[in-house]
Amino acid sequence: MISVFDPRQSAHRPLREFHNGGWSDHAEVPSRATTILGAVGDAVPAADHGLDPIHAVHDPGYVTFLRTAHARWAAAGREGDAIGYVWPVVRRRALTLSRIDAELGRYSADAVTPIGAGTWDSAYWAAQTALTALDPLLGGTARTSFALCRPPGHHAGADYLGGYCYLNNAAIAAQAARDQGAGRVAILDLDYHHGNGTQDIFWTRGDVPFVSIHADPAQDFPFFWGHADEAGEDAGAGATRNIVLPHGTDIAGYRPALAQAIAAVRGFAPDLLVLSFGADTFAGDPICHFALETGDYAELGAIVAALGLPTLVVMEGGYAVDALGANVASFLNGF
Amino acid sequence: MISVFDPRQSAHRPLREFHNGGWSDHAEVPSRATTILGAVGDAVPAADHGLDPIHAVHDPGYVTFLRTAHARWAAAGREGDAIGYVWPVVRRRALTLSRIDAELGRYSADAVTPIGAGTWDSAYWAAQTALTALDPLLGGTARTSFALCRPPGHHAGADYLGGYCYLNNAAIAAQAARDQGAGRVAILDLDYHHGNGTQDIFWTRGDVPFVSIHADPAQDFPFFWGHADEAGEDAGAGATRNIVLPHGTDIAGYRPALAQAIAAVRGFAPDLLVLSFGADTFAGDPICHFALETGDYAELGAIVAALGLPTLVVMEGGYAVDALGANVASFLNGF
Repeated sequence: MISVFDPRQSAHRPLREFHNGGWSDHAEVPSRATTILGAVGDAVPAADHGLDPIHAVHDPGYVTFLRTAHARWAAAGREGDAIGYVWPVVRRRALTLSRIDAELGRYSADAVTPIGAGTWDSAYWAAQTALTALDPLLGGTARTSFALCRPPGHHAGADYLGGYCYLNNAAIAAQAARDQGAGRVAILDLDYHHGNGTQDIFWTRGDVPFVSIHADPAQDFPFFWGHADEAGEDAGAGATRNIVLPHGTDIAGYRPALAQAIAAVRGFAPDLLVLSFGADTFAGDPICHFALETGDYAELGAIVAALGLPTLVVMEGGYAVDALGANVASFLNGF
Repeated sequence: MISVFDPRQSAHRPLREFHNGGWSDHAEVPSRATTILGAVGDAVPAADHGLDPIHAVHDPGYVTFLRTAHARWAAAGREGDAIGYVWPVVRRRALTLSRIDAELGRYSADAVTPIGAGTWDSAYWAAQTALTALDPLLGGTARTSFALCRPPGHHAGADYLGGYCYLNNAAIAAQAARDQGAGRVAILDLDYHHGNGTQDIFWTRGDVPFVSIHADPAQDFPFFWGHADEAGEDAGAGATRNIVLPHGTDIAGYRPALAQAIAAVRGFAPDLLVLSFGADTFAGDPICHFALETGDYAELGAIVAALGLPTLVVMEGGYAVDALGANVASFLNGF
């Protein structure tokens, strides 16, 4: 399997996150990516596909915000990472907002996703990593590839950041595949958390169905999306499928959910699969509550591979850094 | 003028606020109210009017949340004040959310309005203070009264807290006046900040027109509300008036805005006036950027008094604690 990695993804070094009423060390550390790289072996660097495929998914105003937010934060005399403090909870409308704090609220969903000096560069190259890994699938020179993306992407919507995510790497790749002639592109999301950004982006579309298995959002981030009754609207009605699982779910509990998800993907008869893969379903994950073991990931990989689809695996979460390389390698070897 | 104050409003002691990427001492301190009390002299205590008039304005789920949030926060093992970290920026819908963090996001607009052990009690008695000060106006035994409310209220919407506000004291009093037979009740908001909660509550109604003078929200909190083009909808179309002023506005700049606001209030031909009064328009306010002087407040008071309406003055913001008593006394003496 071809792997793609770009070292510029390490420029993003969030200092801390605002959680449980105070600061925590930030869980989404640069060593996550380098640990995975060490476990999967060789990787090719990302090729620059430019901003067009990013703008095909993300609002241009949001992209400009991401590129400039930290510099504007510093220009406002602030230290450290840029983090919002006020959010437009109701009657949100498109406003021309000039102050950095207003834009931070307008374009973000939480206070755990800070913007530092290196954030844009890393987010940009994470998107390019996904696009580069897609190329051989579209060119027919590979059936599967692995995009070692960091920061992750699936919580980022068309015009908002959140959940450690800035640009939605999986959505950008799926849209690029569509724009380059792929027929139906399904996204299967096996991260511990619901991929709310991906769901939002394709919510009203039938050409990119979205299927996700995740912790029940009644108990887990992102709370406001990913409930079992969310199924898409308009042309996307029925093209979103959310399968929620309780805390403590191990492979025995995960297996039937995965079978259900695979059946849903198969039902959409896609021509290409984008797999948002998170290893935060691991028993030892410090911020999550499922109980998969390293060997279980090989089984998951084999089950997904049995779909027989050209598949782009996009890295999402996973915060047990010591085990992360082994868990990802197990999954990829399962293919 | 009758003044009403309840000492239980001092139970709310927010520890700190999350702002500019880090912690600040909280500006909305208990001594604000006691300083004003010292300057205005005698005050009668609040009488308990119960929850009904609060529920007439606020969503019952939100009220239950406010009452229970700090206990649930502590039960979740958290220390200090309850503060959210994730907000439902898009596709917000009514969800049954069980985790305290989810509800904190669902029911709040920012991270500067913490809920502590004493918050509910103080917010409740602030609302009762406003209701008690309304009684003599409705009973015809006074033409003006002053509700020394703390915490303030005008940023709190029907179902959200924000901007140091939890229950909307002015809105609760205005609604109570309507429910007890007052005809049209106008709300005039002279705080430095836009009263977004009050605006939201009466946005689609014509019976409680809302007129506000405040700092341009393009540059100031609450950012997402209070722009000059916001005028109400449905039966409330035209019943909201927002007059925005730039940083540095002094009495010379404030005077014509007040004349415009007074003309707007007069145009609504109200039977009773609720005045949300903030002294954070003061030149020495530590978190605001207007330039009124202590003596100017007497002029403002006289201009409002010249409307000749039964008037309930409800205390909102003002953070220059050393000058706060003199500023409020100057305003009230102006009547």
